[in-house]
Amino acid sequence: MKKLSDQILHQVIKPRPANSFKGTFGKVTLVGGNRNFGGAIIMASTAAVCAGAGLVTTATDASNSGALHAQLPEAMFADFTNDGQVASLVSAATTVAVGPGLGDDETSEHILKNVFASVKPEQNLVIDGSAITLMARENISQPAANVIYTPHEMEWQRLSGIKIGEQTEEKNRAVRDQLNATVVLKKHHTEIYTTNEVYQLTIGTPAQAVGGMGDTLAGMVGGFTAEFHQDVTNAVLAAVYAHSAIAEKIAENQYIVLPHQISRALPTFMKKMEQAPSEHHIGFLN
Amino acid sequence: MKKLSDQILHQVIKPRPANSFKGTFGKVTLVGGNRNFGGAIIMASTAAVCAGAGLVTTATDASNSGALHAQLPEAMFADFTNDGQVASLVSAATTVAVGPGLGDDETSEHILKNVFASVKPEQNLVIDGSAITLMARENISQPAANVIYTPHEMEWQRLSGIKIGEQTEEKNRAVRDQLNATVVLKKHHTEIYTTNEVYQLTIGTPAQAVGGMGDTLAGMVGGFTAEFHQDVTNAVLAAVYAHSAIAEKIAENQYIVLPHQISRALPTFMKKMEQAPSEHHIGFLN
Amino acid sequence: MKKLSDQILHQVIKPRPANSFKGTFGKVTLVGGNRNFGGAIIMASTAAVCAGAGLVTTATDASNSGALHAQLPEAMFADFTNDGQVASLVSAATTVAVGPGLGDDETSEHILKNVFASVKPEQNLVIDGSAITLMARENISQPAANVIYTPHEMEWQRLSGIKIGEQTEEKNRAVRDQLNATVVLKKHHTEIYTTNEVYQLTIGTPAQAVGGMGDTLAGMVGGFTAEFHQDVTNAVLAAVYAHSAIAEKIAENQYIVLPHQISRALPTFMKKMEQAPSEHHIGFLN
Amino acid sequence: MKKLSDQILHQVIKPRPANSFKGTFGKVTLVGGNRNFGGAIIMASTAAVCAGAGLVTTATDASNSGALHAQLPEAMFADFTNDGQVASLVSAATTVAVGPGLGDDETSEHILKNVFASVKPEQNLVIDGSAITLMARENISQPAANVIYTPHEMEWQRLSGIKIGEQTEEKNRAVRDQLNATVVLKKHHTEIYTTNEVYQLTIGTPAQAVGGMGDTLAGMVGGFTAEFHQDVTNAVLAAVYAHSAIAEKIAENQYIVLPHQISRALPTFMKKMEQAPSEHHIGFLN
Repeated sequence: MKKLSDQILHQVIKPRPANSFKGTFGKVTLVGGNRNFGGAIIMASTAAVCAGAGLVTTATDASNSGALHAQLPEAMFADFTNDGQVASLVSAATTVAVGPGLGDDETSEHILKNVFASVKPEQNLVIDGSAITLMARENISQPAANVIYTPHEMEWQRLSGIKIGEQTEEKNRAVRDQLNATVVLKKHHTEIYTTNEVYQLTIGTPAQAVGGMGDTLAGMVGGFTAEFHQDVTNAVLAAVYAHSAIAEKIAENQYIVLPHQISRALPTFMKKMEQAPSEHHIGFLN
Repeated sequence: MKKLSDQILHQVIKPRPANSFKGTFGKVTLVGGNRNFGGAIIMASTAAVCAGAGLVTTATDASNSGALHAQLPEAMFADFTNDGQVASLVSAATTVAVGPGLGDDETSEHILKNVFASVKPEQNLVIDGSAITLMARENISQPAANVIYTPHEMEWQRLSGIKIGEQTEEKNRAVRDQLNATVVLKKHHTEIYTTNEVYQLTIGTPAQAVGGMGDTLAGMVGGFTAEFHQDVTNAVLAAVYAHSAIAEKIAENQYIVLPHQISRALPTFMKKMEQAPSEHHIGFLN
Repeated sequence: MKKLSDQILHQVIKPRPANSFKGTFGKVTLVGGNRNFGGAIIMASTAAVCAGAGLVTTATDASNSGALHAQLPEAMFADFTNDGQVASLVSAATTVAVGPGLGDDETSEHILKNVFASVKPEQNLVIDGSAITLMARENISQPAANVIYTPHEMEWQRLSGIKIGEQTEEKNRAVRDQLNATVVLKKHHTEIYTTNEVYQLTIGTPAQAVGGMGDTLAGMVGGFTAEFHQDVTNAVLAAVYAHSAIAEKIAENQYIVLPHQISRALPTFMKKMEQAPSEHHIGFLN
Repeated sequence: MKKLSDQILHQVIKPRPANSFKGTFGKVTLVGGNRNFGGAIIMASTAAVCAGAGLVTTATDASNSGALHAQLPEAMFADFTNDGQVASLVSAATTVAVGPGLGDDETSEHILKNVFASVKPEQNLVIDGSAITLMARENISQPAANVIYTPHEMEWQRLSGIKIGEQTEEKNRAVRDQLNATVVLKKHHTEIYTTNEVYQLTIGTPAQAVGGMGDTLAGMVGGFTAEFHQDVTNAVLAAVYAHSAIAEKIAENQYIVLPHQISRALPTFMKKMEQAPSEHHIGFLN
C-alpha cells in the first residue's frame, strides 16, 4: 500500500491556463438531499463549487432550493423528482455525484435508477452514502461509467459483502477488480483502491468526526474529477488528500472542524498548492 | 454549594482519540421550534453541532427546514408532527433535547408526549423552556430517563411549586431529590442541582441577557452530554461553565453577546481547554 | 436648534446591572415586511436585536419567516395577518415599531389599524415608512401612545401638510406640538423634534444613501427605546446619533455602507460608548 | 482598439456629494432567476446593491424570495410573472437588467417581452444571458432604450450571426452600429463596443472561470449605470474594469474567485478608487 503525500496536490493542482473559461473546468451534477437530509447535498455542492468546477447543478428535493441558494448562489437547482431534467443534467455532466442525503426509500431508489440509466461510459460517477446502501439492498447494478465509490466501512460491507473486521487489502482489492471502479474506503487512515494501486492516507484528525464530513468529501471528489478530468484517478487522490490536509490545519485551533469550513478554505489552499512546491503547508490559513 | 471553576472544563474536554468516528461522539435529537419560534431550535441545534456531537437531528415545524439548512447544513431535519419519525429519532439518540421554541399549544403538548413515550431509561433527556411549562400545566409525568431540566426561575416555580422568592438551596434540593433529575436553575449565578451536590456558577455577564441565550445553553447541554456521555453530570457542568466563560470573553468587547456567537466560538474555545490546563483563558478568541 | 453630540451616547448607554435578565431590557414588536418588502422588516429587526433589546418579535408576511430566521434566529416570528396574535404581541411590548416594508395596500391598512387599536398609552410606538403614508392618505388617527415618527421629508409632507421646501423649524414644531409626538425628520442633517427641544444631527455621510438605511434606523429606535425605556427621548436621540456615528466610521473605508453593517457593529460600538467617555471614537471597529 | 486602464475608475467613481439621498443614485430593476437559476439573479442583485445603486428591486420566480432576502435584505422582491408589477418596476427604474438566470422557456419569453414593452427610450437596459438567446431564437426586436448587451461569444454569435471564429473588431463593430447599442463581449480580453470606440480589457484572471461570474458582471453594469447615470458609457467601462481588477486582487490568494466575493469587495474597492488617483491598487483588500 502506497502512502499518499502532498506530492499528489502539486501533480494535480496546476496554474490555470490564461485563456480558459467555465467549460474548461467541467460540469458537476450532484443528486441527493431528500426532505430530511438537505444539508448533505448542500455541503457536497459547496465543496464542488469551492473546488473550482466550472458549473455545478444540484438536483435535490424541492424544499431545499431556498437553503441551497441562500448558502450557495453559484449552484443551479433542479427538482430531483423531475426525471427528464435530471437525465438531461446527468448527460451533460463531466462528473455526476449521487448519494449525499439521498435517503433509501422508494423515491430515492427511483431517482438513483434514473441517474444510472442516464449516465454514459465516458462520464465520472461518484457514488456515495445511501446510494451505495440502495445498490446493495436493492441489487441495483453498477452502470457503465468511470465509477468512484466513497463508502465508509459499513457501506463497503454492504456493497462488497466483506465484513468490517475482515476488510483486508487483498479482499478489498479483489472486489474492486470485479467492480472495476475506484474505491475510497473512508476510515481511520482511509484507503483508495485504484486500477493499479492501493493508496493509504496517513493524515487526518479526529476533529473530522463530525456529521457532513463525508458529504463534503464526496463533493470535493466530484469537483476535482470534473476540473482535473485529464487524470481522474489522480484527481480523486488529490481530493482525498486535500480534504484531510485542510482539516488538520483547521484542527490546530479547533476541537472540531465543521465540514463547510474545509470547502471555504479550498480556494486559498489550492492557490498555495499551485504556487509552492515546498514549504507550502505553513500558514495557508493565515 | 460548591463553586464551579474552569477545572470542570479540563476534566471533561479531552483530546479526541485518534481512531474515533462520528458514532464515538453520540447523537443528539432536538425537538422544538414551532411556526413562531423556529429560531430557538436553530440556535439550540447550532450549539449542539458546534460543541461536537457526532450527529445532530432537528425535529421542528416544517416551515423551519429552510432556515435550519441555510444556517446549519450539518443538522438533519425532521417534521416534528411526524410521530413515527420523531419516535424513531428519539430512540436512536444519545441525548434528546426537547423544548426550545416548542410552544405550549395542543400540538406542542402532543409532540412532547410523543417524545416522552419514546425515550428510554438509559438516554439523556434535556427538558427546556415550554416543555417544562407544559409538564407543569398539563400535569405530564417525567419519563424514565436521565433527565436534565434547564428552567429559569419562573419555569422552576411552575415545575417545583416553589415561588421565586423562596427558591432556597434546601427547597430546591428537596424537589430535585423527588424528581431524581439534574436541575440547571438559570439565574444570576446559575445553580446546578445534581444527585450528590449543588454547584454555583460565579461567572457570567449581563451582556448575556438576550433572547435565545437559554436555547443555546440547552443545545450545549445536549451536545456535551452526547459527546462526553461517559460522565453526564460533569458534561452538564462543563456546558454550563463554558457557556458563560465564552460569553464573558466576548463581552469584553461587546455590549451584548448574540447567542450564536457563543456556539460559533465553541470549537476554538474547546481546543484551548483541551490543550492548556493553565492560563488557557487568555486570548482564546484572538 | 441644539446640536447633538456624542454626549448623548454616554448619557444613555450605561454598563448593564450585574443582576439583570432579558426582561430588564424590554420587548420590541416590529410589524412590517409584506410579500415584496420583507428585507425591510428583517433589517429593522436585526437592528433591534443587535441594539440589545431583551426580546424581539417580528410580525410580517408568512413568506418572510424563513429569511428572517436564516439571518436572525434571535427574533421570533408572527404572521402579521393574524390579528389576534399581533394584538397580543403589541400589548406585551415595551416598544412597537410599525411600518418598515409594510406597504400601502388594503392588507397593510388593516394591519396598521389593528396595531393602533391594540397599543396602550404607556407604550412606545415607532411609526415609520409606509405606516406614515397610510395614516396621511387614509386619515387614520394617531393612537394614544408615546409616539415617535421617523419620516423622510416626503413622508413628513404627507403627514404634516408642510411642503418639503417649507419645512422650517417653526412650522415643524407647530405640527409636532399638535401631534404631541417625537418626530425624527430624516434628511441631510436630520432633525429631532421633542416636547421641549429641537435637535440637529451634524454627523452622517452620503455613503448612507442606500436602500434599507431608514429601516435600520427605525429598528434601532425600537431597540433603544425598549432597552433604555427609563428615558425614551434620550433613547431616541442616542439611536439617531449612533446610527450615523457608526456609518461615518465604516465609510472611512467604504464607498457605501450596507445597513446591516451598522446593526452588526452595534454591540462593539455600544461597548466603547459604555466604557470610554473620551476618545472612544477612535478605532472602535478595529 | 483602446486599452482600458484604471483611469476609467477615477473618472467615474467620485466622492458622493454631501447632500445626496437614495434617489441620487438611481434605481435598478433586475429581472431573472427562474425556478432553476435563482442564484444567478441573486448574484446579479448583490452586485447592484454593493455597487451603490440607490434602490434595487429583484423580479424573479416566487420560490427565490426567501434566499434573496436571506442573502440580501437590501433588495426588494417582485414576482416576475406579475406583469403589471414588473411593468411598473421597469418604468420606474434608471436601469433595467434582464436575463441572469431567466431561462429560455415560454414563461421566460413572456417575461422578456413584458420588460421590453415597458421600457422607455431614456432608460438603460442591460440585456444578459438567456435574454440574448431568446431575442435571437424568437426574433424579438430590441426595444427603444439605451441598450447594453453583455454576451459571451456564443451568445454574441446567436445575436449577431457572426461565428465565434470570425468575430473580428470590424464585423462586431458593424453589427453594433446596426444595433446602436453598447456591447460588452465577454471573453479572454473582453471587448466593449461603444458608439465611437472599441475598448479592450487587458486585465483578468482564469480564477474568474466560475459559474455566476457573468451574472455578477451584469449586476455591476446595472448598478454602475444607475448610480453614475450622468455618463452611461463610462459607467459600463468602469464596471467591466472594476470586476476584473477586484478578481485579480482576490486571485492573488485564491485558486478561484467566487462571484459574490467581488460584489462584497466593491464598497472597499470603490472607496480606494475615489480616494487615491495613484498607487490605489496596492492592498485594497487588506
